[in-house]
Amino acid sequence: MGHATNRVEDMASPNTGTATTRETIVEIHSVCLPPKKTTFQKLKKRFADVFFPDDPLERFRNQTWRNKVILGLQSLFPIFIWGSQYDLKLFRSDVVSGLTIASLAIPQGISYAKLANLPPIVGLYSSFVPPLIYSILGSSKHLAVGPVSIASLVMGSMLSESVSPTQDPILYLKLAFTSTFFAGLFQASLGLLRLGFLIDFLSKPTLVGFTAGAAVIVSLQQLKGLLGIVHFTGKMQFIPVMSSVFSNRSEWSWETIVMGLGFLIILLTTRHISMRKPKLFWISAASPLASVVISTLLVFLIRNKTHAISFIGHLPKGLNPPSSNMLYFSGTHLALAIKTGIITGVLSLTEGIAVGRTFASLKNYQVNGNKEMMAIGFMNMIGSCTSCYVTTGSFSRSAVNYNAGAKTAVSNIVLASTVLVTLLFLMPLFHYTPNLILAAIILTAVIGLIDYQAAYKLYKVDKFDFFTCMCAFFGVLLVSVPLGLAIAVSVSVIKILLHVTRPNTLEFGNIHGTQIYQSLKRYREASRIHGFLILAVESPIYFVNSTYLQERILRWTREEETRVKENNGSTLKCIILDMTAVSSIDTSGIEALFELRRRLEKQSLQLVLVNPVGSVMEKLHKSKIIESLGLSGLYLTVGEAVADLSSTWKAHGQP
Amino acid sequence: MGHATNRVEDMASPNTGTATTRETIVEIHSVCLPPKKTTFQKLKKRFADVFFPDDPLERFRNQTWRNKVILGLQSLFPIFIWGSQYDLKLFRSDVVSGLTIASLAIPQGISYAKLANLPPIVGLYSSFVPPLIYSILGSSKHLAVGPVSIASLVMGSMLSESVSPTQDPILYLKLAFTSTFFAGLFQASLGLLRLGFLIDFLSKPTLVGFTAGAAVIVSLQQLKGLLGIVHFTGKMQFIPVMSSVFSNRSEWSWETIVMGLGFLIILLTTRHISMRKPKLFWISAASPLASVVISTLLVFLIRNKTHAISFIGHLPKGLNPPSSNMLYFSGTHLALAIKTGIITGVLSLTEGIAVGRTFASLKNYQVNGNKEMMAIGFMNMIGSCTSCYVTTGSFSRSAVNYNAGAKTAVSNIVLASTVLVTLLFLMPLFHYTPNLILAAIILTAVIGLIDYQAAYKLYKVDKFDFFTCMCAFFGVLLVSVPLGLAIAVSVSVIKILLHVTRPNTLEFGNIHGTQIYQSLKRYREASRIHGFLILAVESPIYFVNSTYLQERILRWTREEETRVKENNGSTLKCIILDMTAVSSIDTSGIEALFELRRRLEKQSLQLVLVNPVGSVMEKLHKSKIIESLGLSGLYLTVGEAVADLSSTWKAHGQP
Repeated sequence: MGHATNRVEDMASPNTGTATTRETIVEIHSVCLPPKKTTFQKLKKRFADVFFPDDPLERFRNQTWRNKVILGLQSLFPIFIWGSQYDLKLFRSDVVSGLTIASLAIPQGISYAKLANLPPIVGLYSSFVPPLIYSILGSSKHLAVGPVSIASLVMGSMLSESVSPTQDPILYLKLAFTSTFFAGLFQASLGLLRLGFLIDFLSKPTLVGFTAGAAVIVSLQQLKGLLGIVHFTGKMQFIPVMSSVFSNRSEWSWETIVMGLGFLIILLTTRHISMRKPKLFWISAASPLASVVISTLLVFLIRNKTHAISFIGHLPKGLNPPSSNMLYFSGTHLALAIKTGIITGVLSLTEGIAVGRTFASLKNYQVNGNKEMMAIGFMNMIGSCTSCYVTTGSFSRSAVNYNAGAKTAVSNIVLASTVLVTLLFLMPLFHYTPNLILAAIILTAVIGLIDYQAAYKLYKVDKFDFFTCMCAFFGVLLVSVPLGLAIAVSVSVIKILLHVTRPNTLEFGNIHGTQIYQSLKRYREASRIHGFLILAVESPIYFVNSTYLQERILRWTREEETRVKENNGSTLKCIILDMTAVSSIDTSGIEALFELRRRLEKQSLQLVLVNPVGSVMEKLHKSKIIESLGLSGLYLTVGEAVADLSSTWKAHGQP
Repeated sequence: MGHATNRVEDMASPNTGTATTRETIVEIHSVCLPPKKTTFQKLKKRFADVFFPDDPLERFRNQTWRNKVILGLQSLFPIFIWGSQYDLKLFRSDVVSGLTIASLAIPQGISYAKLANLPPIVGLYSSFVPPLIYSILGSSKHLAVGPVSIASLVMGSMLSESVSPTQDPILYLKLAFTSTFFAGLFQASLGLLRLGFLIDFLSKPTLVGFTAGAAVIVSLQQLKGLLGIVHFTGKMQFIPVMSSVFSNRSEWSWETIVMGLGFLIILLTTRHISMRKPKLFWISAASPLASVVISTLLVFLIRNKTHAISFIGHLPKGLNPPSSNMLYFSGTHLALAIKTGIITGVLSLTEGIAVGRTFASLKNYQVNGNKEMMAIGFMNMIGSCTSCYVTTGSFSRSAVNYNAGAKTAVSNIVLASTVLVTLLFLMPLFHYTPNLILAAIILTAVIGLIDYQAAYKLYKVDKFDFFTCMCAFFGVLLVSVPLGLAIAVSVSVIKILLHVTRPNTLEFGNIHGTQIYQSLKRYREASRIHGFLILAVESPIYFVNSTYLQERILRWTREEETRVKENNGSTLKCIILDMTAVSSIDTSGIEALFELRRRLEKQSLQLVLVNPVGSVMEKLHKSKIIESLGLSGLYLTVGEAVADLSSTWKAHGQP
């Protein structure tokens, strides 16, 4: 099959009757095998593709030893990249943004810890150590680190299913730290083993649905604080929570409801203002702390008049106590701790990476996924030894950080310093902080997580993605948090498999006067060519679809023969398979091609393959199918196949 | 973007320096949207593609009512298709082949029942009712129906893990019939719900490995019978079986070993002869029965001299007793029965369908997968009520049936009649049949299942398929039968996902003097075009790869810019993405394209999409990305894109 130039007349005369006789010179190109590679080389390339798609060693090439050491340090500790150019102007910006996020982080920290059924102080501990560690290891400039609502909720719901946080608070705390340790270990391992791509399996539709479902659950949980209910269900699902709300109507306290609703309206209004005008970000950033101060004062003033409003109570002063002695690696609850760790780890990682990438993209810098995973992972591992629970980059606080003008990770150091001062001196001030204000703060934060616009867009563009989103939403709401997530991931994976199991096949025709072959259904200009049936397969050919494709192609052939007979057209002689979109093939696929050729041959039909991609060509070659197809069984383009075969038939005196 | 004809000079001047200035008329074609369809229409088409790819109602169109009824009956009971044309000549062939397979089926039935830890008589029952039912419902002409080794082994190993067949034989028998019922129910449901494609997930490499592994296990189990060991492990894995063989060396009986080896050699030799010369099929077909007769006689003659050789003992005379009262649908073992039913159901279905297709393809007739599933399913459901355990089409007996000249399913009726006679009159003759001969028959049958040639071919053509095969083999041999199967299926599915997660991207160049664009690495004739970077993505763009592809394309761009700088070439201006092989896209993929365009724009680079397929084009349109790409952002072919953009640049006075 070398080069050959054929003069072909009337090569593209479609049977619409409008064909004109022309002369065209068509050069026939042979189909090349890809450059030869050993199995080891292929494995190496595949390995690099899977684990090192960013080519992390690229920057180290052609560098002196000294530079290599500096680059190595910089890649381990991004602080070395920006640290040397740090100046007073940057510092001023970072102090402003750091203080702003601190005013948000302190009330949120206390609230989210309650969401995870943990003592409020743990929320503050978790806003002190992790930001410090992230500022050294992290590569995002805008990520504001601390506890987040989703991970807190998931940890709370999963752990409290087995251990009661009120009856056995020490064991519960131990489990929380142990889960945090495993979350960190899992995150750091994903980064170290460069398996970060696994979090891509949580697709955006899954996350939109899951987050919205979790936000609804969290909001419903806040009814406890906002209505002043004392006896509340420990369950998370929609139905038990609602029945718990209404069966305990006697416990509703009007003082709590009035005050709670008042502050909720203030918080929602300030949030709305800041969303409308991003420049006024400080209004929504300051309002939680302001609400905490005002509500605490109010409760303090009326403390002798009513006992209907519950408040936090005593909080210990002082820095994070060490907690490495509270981790445990044996016992009945170890499996639960590992499971909780992995799920909260994946979720917090996904949030952290997504937030980091969002703001990096806005300011046009790179956030390396695998490195971020290690940073977040180490942060949680160290956190678990210093009384912190799972932390990551929070979307709402990072947005405030960005809008407040944060320039580097120093804003996280400022945040940590402010929390430090609070822990050392200000804890007694929170004694009379009412629980209702924490509920209102959480509610305001999580309402923003229900992204109905994104869901609507999914509905418009891709119904299946919308379906995945709904599976995640209702799965979380009605079944359980981990199962809802599992259902949504399975649905997304099944979609991929279904696409391969039942691939599209298209019938192609020639666009008159060109060498372009396109779908007959889609392009009206395209028309069939006498004697040929041109089919394009739009998927790899694998064991899951090889039988289907074989049957489908035979059915196309039967249908075409019927059509030809009805129209008294010239007989079908050749099936051309355009393999351009067949990106891969396995042994079952090759066998199906063999079988297809055999069955077509029995009907005196020729099978021709066009433009197989490199890896497919290689396997076709190895399995000797190309020899069996014969000299005129493989072409580079459909046009060349049509031209060459037509001229051969003409030479043999066939019509 | 209507039609436009541009006169472009020097449009394809590769930077190799060999370019010649030419004049080419390039017509620009617009990219069409596919014909508009509502969501319902799309769902309907998708539904038909998944569940009715064979268009089963096609034959009913344009028929009279009377014909429709006849066609309907024929499609439910294939016996109506061939029944009316049946004649004496066909009958003669069927009697010969039916008697031949009966001589094989009787000893094998008894042996396989022992493999499933069931009373030998159940094997004969299972060779009587199921062939009768299959002859009415089945569409294969050559399938010989009865118990098979793999399904027997799997049922035996799964059930005996929970219930001992020696200590609680009644419960064990009940479980076996219940599993058979569920196997049939599952098989029939797959067919009725047209979910038959699910068995395609058991790929050929998986089956080759699994079958070989199971065959090794079965062979090792036969050491019990061949060595005359009395106390044998109930486990199936390699290590416990081997240790059981050698720790019970005191029980080895030399009489059994000598006689067993003698018959084994005879059986293997006759098998070898028949494989060499298919015409002598009757030698291997007759030898098991002959061996049974001779060995029974021998044992009968020496019955007073030695007791070292164990034999079957008393077998009840008479037809299949009803067993519907032995099915049970509640209780602790129900889950086990369902699980065993599903796994044996899938395995026996896969074997039956594969065998049916193999012989149908040799004689060029069609076997409809879904209909076969219903036939096999009903056969097992009825079987479970008439004291039969799981049956399907056996490969070895079907091959004998084919070689013996079977013409229709009547050979199965002849087989059943012969078994009937045996059951009614000949059972006492099997009293002294030694267990060692059953072991030798099983061993001879399963050795043929180890298809090392297929494994070697997998190794040559597709290393990954070979890996899957080995996973199945060692999984079955060392872990357990269902887990080994699960591991192999997971590995094959992960391969599909991995291919999508890390798709290939290729850099394209122009083959000089043509409109063909092909991989630069593969085609030496192809060369780059000034100012363009042409990339082809070889996979759907989904959530699992959208981030990767975005980063990968940006890396291609960086590398190309470095290359251009080093060679002092003209600056890069445009990235062309050839979407021909992107067979599908989801919302994450679309967002990645948006983000890619945004980031390229920041580097003053244009993004152009070429030839998106119908469904992709539709989603691009709905998400408004096409508007955002601008007028010159979408072309039908790479050639047109290059030509049009070059001429635009020239018109604007750019180099």
